[in-house]
Amino acid sequence: MKAIIIDGSFGIDSLRIVNQDSAAPGPGQVRLRMKAQSLNYRDLLTVQGAYNPKQPLPLVPLSDGVGVVEAVGEGVTRAKVGDRVCPIFCQAWLDGPPDRDRLRSTLGGPLHGTLREEMVISEQALVHPPAHLSDAECAALPCAAVTAYTALFTEGDLQPGQTVLVLGTGGVSLFALLLAKARGARVIVTSSSDEKLSRARELGADEGINYRSDETWWNTVRKLTDGRGVDHVVEVGGAGTLEGSIRSTAIGGHIAVIGVLSGVKTSLAVTRILMGYLRLQGILVGHRASFEALCELLAAHELHPVISDTFPFTEARAALELMARGGHFGKIVLEVP
Amino acid sequence: MKAIIIDGSFGIDSLRIVNQDSAAPGPGQVRLRMKAQSLNYRDLLTVQGAYNPKQPLPLVPLSDGVGVVEAVGEGVTRAKVGDRVCPIFCQAWLDGPPDRDRLRSTLGGPLHGTLREEMVISEQALVHPPAHLSDAECAALPCAAVTAYTALFTEGDLQPGQTVLVLGTGGVSLFALLLAKARGARVIVTSSSDEKLSRARELGADEGINYRSDETWWNTVRKLTDGRGVDHVVEVGGAGTLEGSIRSTAIGGHIAVIGVLSGVKTSLAVTRILMGYLRLQGILVGHRASFEALCELLAAHELHPVISDTFPFTEARAALELMARGGHFGKIVLEVP
Amino acid sequence: MKAIIIDGSFGIDSLRIVNQDSAAPGPGQVRLRMKAQSLNYRDLLTVQGAYNPKQPLPLVPLSDGVGVVEAVGEGVTRAKVGDRVCPIFCQAWLDGPPDRDRLRSTLGGPLHGTLREEMVISEQALVHPPAHLSDAECAALPCAAVTAYTALFTEGDLQPGQTVLVLGTGGVSLFALLLAKARGARVIVTSSSDEKLSRARELGADEGINYRSDETWWNTVRKLTDGRGVDHVVEVGGAGTLEGSIRSTAIGGHIAVIGVLSGVKTSLAVTRILMGYLRLQGILVGHRASFEALCELLAAHELHPVISDTFPFTEARAALELMARGGHFGKIVLEVP
Amino acid sequence: MKAIIIDGSFGIDSLRIVNQDSAAPGPGQVRLRMKAQSLNYRDLLTVQGAYNPKQPLPLVPLSDGVGVVEAVGEGVTRAKVGDRVCPIFCQAWLDGPPDRDRLRSTLGGPLHGTLREEMVISEQALVHPPAHLSDAECAALPCAAVTAYTALFTEGDLQPGQTVLVLGTGGVSLFALLLAKARGARVIVTSSSDEKLSRARELGADEGINYRSDETWWNTVRKLTDGRGVDHVVEVGGAGTLEGSIRSTAIGGHIAVIGVLSGVKTSLAVTRILMGYLRLQGILVGHRASFEALCELLAAHELHPVISDTFPFTEARAALELMARGGHFGKIVLEVP
Repeated sequence: MKAIIIDGSFGIDSLRIVNQDSAAPGPGQVRLRMKAQSLNYRDLLTVQGAYNPKQPLPLVPLSDGVGVVEAVGEGVTRAKVGDRVCPIFCQAWLDGPPDRDRLRSTLGGPLHGTLREEMVISEQALVHPPAHLSDAECAALPCAAVTAYTALFTEGDLQPGQTVLVLGTGGVSLFALLLAKARGARVIVTSSSDEKLSRARELGADEGINYRSDETWWNTVRKLTDGRGVDHVVEVGGAGTLEGSIRSTAIGGHIAVIGVLSGVKTSLAVTRILMGYLRLQGILVGHRASFEALCELLAAHELHPVISDTFPFTEARAALELMARGGHFGKIVLEVP
Repeated sequence: MKAIIIDGSFGIDSLRIVNQDSAAPGPGQVRLRMKAQSLNYRDLLTVQGAYNPKQPLPLVPLSDGVGVVEAVGEGVTRAKVGDRVCPIFCQAWLDGPPDRDRLRSTLGGPLHGTLREEMVISEQALVHPPAHLSDAECAALPCAAVTAYTALFTEGDLQPGQTVLVLGTGGVSLFALLLAKARGARVIVTSSSDEKLSRARELGADEGINYRSDETWWNTVRKLTDGRGVDHVVEVGGAGTLEGSIRSTAIGGHIAVIGVLSGVKTSLAVTRILMGYLRLQGILVGHRASFEALCELLAAHELHPVISDTFPFTEARAALELMARGGHFGKIVLEVP
Repeated sequence: MKAIIIDGSFGIDSLRIVNQDSAAPGPGQVRLRMKAQSLNYRDLLTVQGAYNPKQPLPLVPLSDGVGVVEAVGEGVTRAKVGDRVCPIFCQAWLDGPPDRDRLRSTLGGPLHGTLREEMVISEQALVHPPAHLSDAECAALPCAAVTAYTALFTEGDLQPGQTVLVLGTGGVSLFALLLAKARGARVIVTSSSDEKLSRARELGADEGINYRSDETWWNTVRKLTDGRGVDHVVEVGGAGTLEGSIRSTAIGGHIAVIGVLSGVKTSLAVTRILMGYLRLQGILVGHRASFEALCELLAAHELHPVISDTFPFTEARAALELMARGGHFGKIVLEVP
Repeated sequence: MKAIIIDGSFGIDSLRIVNQDSAAPGPGQVRLRMKAQSLNYRDLLTVQGAYNPKQPLPLVPLSDGVGVVEAVGEGVTRAKVGDRVCPIFCQAWLDGPPDRDRLRSTLGGPLHGTLREEMVISEQALVHPPAHLSDAECAALPCAAVTAYTALFTEGDLQPGQTVLVLGTGGVSLFALLLAKARGARVIVTSSSDEKLSRARELGADEGINYRSDETWWNTVRKLTDGRGVDHVVEVGGAGTLEGSIRSTAIGGHIAVIGVLSGVKTSLAVTRILMGYLRLQGILVGHRASFEALCELLAAHELHPVISDTFPFTEARAALELMARGGHFGKIVLEVP
């Protein structure tokens, strides 16, 4: 079976298609025939060597995907041959609080990822995605959608009528928009592009702020909430936006700290956290129970992920280059023929 | 009746003893004859004009105290004449999440505080302290002890066997030490004084770290927890210690952001929050329901606050000067003759 | 102003229209000009003397209603003249767990109720209903809709994809159906009437069971859930249905024990509760915080209560007779001209 | 290695000591050398054929025990050779809500139990008991202590200052007494024996009621709580006591429905559940996470289980006969030489 690996050294040019032996699933394991994968920004950083420079190579990258069970090991009860399933991002994190072992059990580094025709995983480390989704849509879920669910529900306890500030229109942000609207929340989206704001509004966003033309966007957020601020922030910006997010948040509000797109170090006013009774919660995707709850929510409201572009499996390099250029809106998906 | 006010301009020298008319409690109100007050660092900042420079004067300072009900207004059912009660810090925050009105209803600024012989408050804005405590001990509770309770239990859900890092030996920190030990937790305390560490150990602390002689104290915290880090931090240091607190915290851990003793701006590595799945929770004392739960916990384990020094009510100035000099260990209390 | 009272002795024939003086709101109080009221089965029992035979008379009956604030007392901040508001069922239960005083503070007995042109209540004891509802629809909320919300969300934590069994098509049951569908749950409704089942399906019910033609309806519930049983039961039947509800419930499921329509004593198999890890939760309407959360949910999904019949305020007797006969589908409302 | 089985037909006389082959642990499994076991009433019922008459024979009975890991299969990380560990009661229930498969994975029927010199289990299905306990004390934990923990904490959220009613002095009840006192609660114990009440008081019980001499014991419970009733009931009596337990419970209180000692069918007043806003929660031991939390609580307060009698492993029959006669106070333990 074919796999794509980062070979020898980091960089998009180091990606190679190789042939690997097919493996038999051991006790409690299943073998999947992969149907589709999707990209996250973490995958681009990993290929570039920027996510974890100590990652041993070769490595099969990517954490997201969907496949069909084609063989099961002894004693397997959670899946049967023919089931369509998604591997979970942290293979060892099924429920409860995170710990070091759980957070290190991630696909696409340090563990080999989904960018191959077959993979063997524990029967515990999978979820059955909703039936109303296509393979490409299922492949979009494990990382970005679970992150959005964890931020808003598992950690955030989002309630109808609350207001959510979603930074940008990346994968996590668009899922957060869809899920928050399904729960009956009001959603404010920021972007540097009026066109992307317009597409976000078509997906249900109540307000859009172009942070390029509106440099003190947090003041606009305040105005849009009668001076009160928002209840939740899906903070994917990192150091460049955290201060603005803090200024946008209502007393007692919740900031899900997710991404580091705009840098890692920031100067922070501690008193604002204190005097605002704010909660900053670091989020690293989430556990299997959140993934399962996400699937119920998607099914109940018949929600569909936003897919931007689809490539054949063998053109993973082109897909990564598209992500590096930006300009996509929604998830970039690979399909295995 | 006598009251002490900040008169004309800020500064310890602006404190004046004045005579005020006795007020009749309106419907739903009670009048307290105050028995004792206690100081918090916030009170010193307020008197110095550093907490809120826009605070109108004159102001009766201090938020902590205990009194006896000597008159009740129409329709009062939560207290009767003769009851010993403590006013709550945020007079309008009884339960549930904080909001702007609740957080602005604080004694000792913007509302007149406890440094007087009599005060009239709503019957909703009081708590009955435990019977086993002296008046001086009761006066020590409303701010520091409720803050510690909120940090560890209301927000932190501290469990037996977990480890708590307590910064310093101020009022909140010593209460956190006592409460965490009562719940069966392990406690690590930091201080710049070996003598204070020794006294903290007498109160039950399992470990003490002198952060003056041990500049990378977070590494020592890590060593004391087998490399894992602590589950909770009672972070009263602010900008000067937050980075160290973050480095001290286990994956999935909780940092209660309480104080700003060491400055307000800090450079923060956002990725550590994210990769550690950390929670930073701003804490501003807490609601009446937490105060009531605190009283049950103190009573159940017969815990006593640590009282450092006691002054007569009329020597509030000397008490504040002692706080400004530092060197106390436990709460500074005023007693009304 | 006019009020309708139960005068002298119990019975529908004892209802009298009387003139009462208009009262000025005291400190912290508001006076409402009532626009509409609605009936609950409890009101019929109260008028008949069957709910609490020791209730002193005269009594203004009914607990549900909506009015407009026309005067406010000193210090009122939660409402202003012109606001449309609903009194809450338990006037003293704002949030947190119930206690004796909270559960005894109910309108329509022991406290005078809503069946009058004006009423004075505490500013704490009211909620602002959603703007998209008519007065008649607002009047339908305080008792039945809050009960359904408390059962499914405050106590039940209903999740998308779970299954809810709703007994009958009374006021609480129809609200439970609407709210559960909005949250993305699957709903099974029982009734003795095929026509009512058909109307329930129009409102979104996924399945209907006629318990008259299908005497062992719990077996049908089991079949409809692949033998698993339902996650939640809205149990309004009481003694006559509780055993069937228990047999209908999945392991770990939740039965909200609400009504006593079919009698009060039942023979119960304790082992089924134990071996099924079931939770039986008695529900008595709920607190103000649940009412507020309900309003957010109704507004977010633009839900409308089902109104069966509307009468003028002065024809309360005819309205109660309709309820006694049964045959209505949805709430019976009175309107004040 | 030796095992004791129920052979051919049910009954204490059907217990046989047999020799079985030693098994190698498969992937993810460990083999334990058992050090001690303990009895629960369920084991007596199982041996007598009264718990599940359809249970296939032969069966190794008993669910409680402790052993030392003497061999580990491939890929095991949760335990190593030499570790002292307890198998968990429901082998497949690690965390989260119960379901059918989880509740059917119980040792001592349908799965073979602990009454043998060696047993092979999944590395997931074990817990490390506290170091301060003897082997006999560890063997007492898996069923009774976890049940008490689940009732009071996992489901009950017991708080300091609340009151707990504990029925009788059996295994679950004595653990509930110890754990509730450690959390700072007040405990009322019932028994038919003044001597047992006296021993319960030595263990910390605040009040004792002899239900033989005090037939309406629920009235006494009410008197001891100023008419309010208790917050939690550890209800191990079943049909014979449930009505009394309901009458003993405060508004909003919680009844953990655990045992069926006094019969399975009872006549129940549904209105009391409703009007008291009571919660009846069926409890079937609990999950691994509760067991682990229990161990932390025992360690933090250095609590010791109450051991009544100890027998050699080979005298299991005499141990069961002692349980059948009653008269023990605390757990009956078997030790493997």
